[in-house]
Amino acid sequence: MGTGRLETFADGVFAIAITLLVLEIPHPEVDEHLGSELVDQWPAYLAYVLSFVTIGIIWVNHHALMVQFARADRAFLFINVFFLMCVAFIPFPTALIADDLGSETAMVTYGLTLSATALMFNVFWHYGRLRLLRADADPREVRGITRSYIPGVFIYAGATAVSSWNAEVGFIIYSVLAAVYVVSGSLWAGRDAD
Amino acid sequence: MGTGRLETFADGVFAIAITLLVLEIPHPEVDEHLGSELVDQWPAYLAYVLSFVTIGIIWVNHHALMVQFARADRAFLFINVFFLMCVAFIPFPTALIADDLGSETAMVTYGLTLSATALMFNVFWHYGRLRLLRADADPREVRGITRSYIPGVFIYAGATAVSSWNAEVGFIIYSVLAAVYVVSGSLWAGRDAD
Amino acid sequence: MGTGRLETFADGVFAIAITLLVLEIPHPEVDEHLGSELVDQWPAYLAYVLSFVTIGIIWVNHHALMVQFARADRAFLFINVFFLMCVAFIPFPTALIADDLGSETAMVTYGLTLSATALMFNVFWHYGRLRLLRADADPREVRGITRSYIPGVFIYAGATAVSSWNAEVGFIIYSVLAAVYVVSGSLWAGRDAD
Amino acid sequence: MGTGRLETFADGVFAIAITLLVLEIPHPEVDEHLGSELVDQWPAYLAYVLSFVTIGIIWVNHHALMVQFARADRAFLFINVFFLMCVAFIPFPTALIADDLGSETAMVTYGLTLSATALMFNVFWHYGRLRLLRADADPREVRGITRSYIPGVFIYAGATAVSSWNAEVGFIIYSVLAAVYVVSGSLWAGRDAD
Repeated sequence: MGTGRLETFADGVFAIAITLLVLEIPHPEVDEHLGSELVDQWPAYLAYVLSFVTIGIIWVNHHALMVQFARADRAFLFINVFFLMCVAFIPFPTALIADDLGSETAMVTYGLTLSATALMFNVFWHYGRLRLLRADADPREVRGITRSYIPGVFIYAGATAVSSWNAEVGFIIYSVLAAVYVVSGSLWAGRDAD
Repeated sequence: MGTGRLETFADGVFAIAITLLVLEIPHPEVDEHLGSELVDQWPAYLAYVLSFVTIGIIWVNHHALMVQFARADRAFLFINVFFLMCVAFIPFPTALIADDLGSETAMVTYGLTLSATALMFNVFWHYGRLRLLRADADPREVRGITRSYIPGVFIYAGATAVSSWNAEVGFIIYSVLAAVYVVSGSLWAGRDAD
Repeated sequence: MGTGRLETFADGVFAIAITLLVLEIPHPEVDEHLGSELVDQWPAYLAYVLSFVTIGIIWVNHHALMVQFARADRAFLFINVFFLMCVAFIPFPTALIADDLGSETAMVTYGLTLSATALMFNVFWHYGRLRLLRADADPREVRGITRSYIPGVFIYAGATAVSSWNAEVGFIIYSVLAAVYVVSGSLWAGRDAD
Repeated sequence: MGTGRLETFADGVFAIAITLLVLEIPHPEVDEHLGSELVDQWPAYLAYVLSFVTIGIIWVNHHALMVQFARADRAFLFINVFFLMCVAFIPFPTALIADDLGSETAMVTYGLTLSATALMFNVFWHYGRLRLLRADADPREVRGITRSYIPGVFIYAGATAVSSWNAEVGFIIYSVLAAVYVVSGSLWAGRDAD
């Protein structure tokens, strides 16, 4: 079976989860204090940006994996559903950290969600790599993908552990991770185009 | 008329209904009690997982049916609309059981929704099977699909009856049904690939 | 320019508007009165079904129009945006009539929304018919579509007028209109297949 | 890498952001004052129309750009994510101006969001223009696009400045800008078809 509808469905869930994030930003009342209230809820904007970019990165990576696969089978569709279950959950802990970037409990919840997402992403990749690979997939590229995604689980688990000790440091680590992914991914694309 | 836009539309509704589920999880206030409040609302996470996997299964099955059809007609589009009306309703009873897994009324509402969905799924399949089948559809596969979907209505109706007597047992049955579908569907896919 | 992205975008808006309808159904508290509260809000379910089927019909009709067009131009994309603005508004008056099927003001708001949608649908069709028709479009089919969509505006305007006098009668008319469309559309499809 | 999934994902975000706008319109209680309450919240409808048309215009323009590109690379996917982050944010300031069209703070927030969107749109276009252009792209058309999008940033920044002095005048400017885009874009399409 082809991968077309899996991609349409996954893109739908990514697009909805990422667009629902804006609903988690509180609406202050529009009165003479609006300006200061908008400024005071700066953690909500940071949380929006972090989760938007993070889901965006996951979408780009999902995209990069799918081009390696020739087809899908039923187990793969279900693994994709479990993976998307993690992605679609991200707005929930995002709302928690948007309320208070200093709450260790909120930040750990956020980190656990991203760790679970990274884990399911690896399950998704390894299942596909072992059974559904295109005949002409480049073995070096396949090994490169494997090497670059496995650490993600441990990095996010580590960041979650740090969050339980200090929420703000945890938040900074998640942000730096996202920034590094975007910049290195883009540079890689630059080299790629040569 | 082709089946392309029917699939795009259906995938959209599936993706949105499944992603809206996260909005039904209550947001506790972020204060020193956050940890215990997050733990206390464990039924909401179970309800999220059950409904996510259930909608995921329905999506996989819809996918499996559509490949058997050569085309769509107007009546089929409308049957699809009524079927999606059931799927899109699932977030409503999910929010009820998320509040209290022990409420028989909530669990019966959930069961009735899944029973109606299973019924409409059968209507969808039988209409398509009788009028829109691909010329090269494998008769054994068609009979296999028919045999495997008809019991769903009775199983969900039975689980609904059990829910009216004991909500928790009802919930366990819905969960076991989902798990059996995922595992057997995946094993079947395994055999399929040989 | 092709019609592909117009259809993807329109299908997205249709799918989201139709799936958001479930969010307009109030969630009663889960306690010993849940059963009677669920029963008491029956207008909300009727409103859900009516709007779901109505948006479904509009989607089917949009689908039927698009196959007549060879291409899109910029003005057509904008007309499509204005048309979708009406469709995406439907959840708002749906929530009003879900609260109270007996409110004339609510039912008139609902009727005005459907009348505006019918009007924009005609604008959409006539612009496309005059400028973007496929070279091999069947003139009889084109005339048939024109004849069948023009009355919609007047019928919905009339139903709106009736709603201002009696909300329940207005609701029944909207429901009968939707039922007639579904049944006649399906029968027509039946004849079509001969 | 192809541009297919970028367009599917972007269309999804556009469709969801535009359809979520209706959720920002407050639901008055359905009682004998419903009529006057519906009339009194006219700013909410104006805000809905303005943001719907504005997102619609951005979608049409995104569409117009994408046909110039032969392919996508990783950096381009990320730029698209940042651009969509601005688009998906639009419902937030829309809800603010829907509350009170006379609030300078709300209108400035709205203007800043549109300015950021215009800026990211230019980044998107210039990156694509320099690296991803189709071999057969018409240089005059490419220059025309460049000339027509650069002023957008300055126009929206100027309108934001005006909004900080008088919110209503700011709103009128945003509305006139949208109207001019729609009308000129449509006329241009007319000429195009000759």
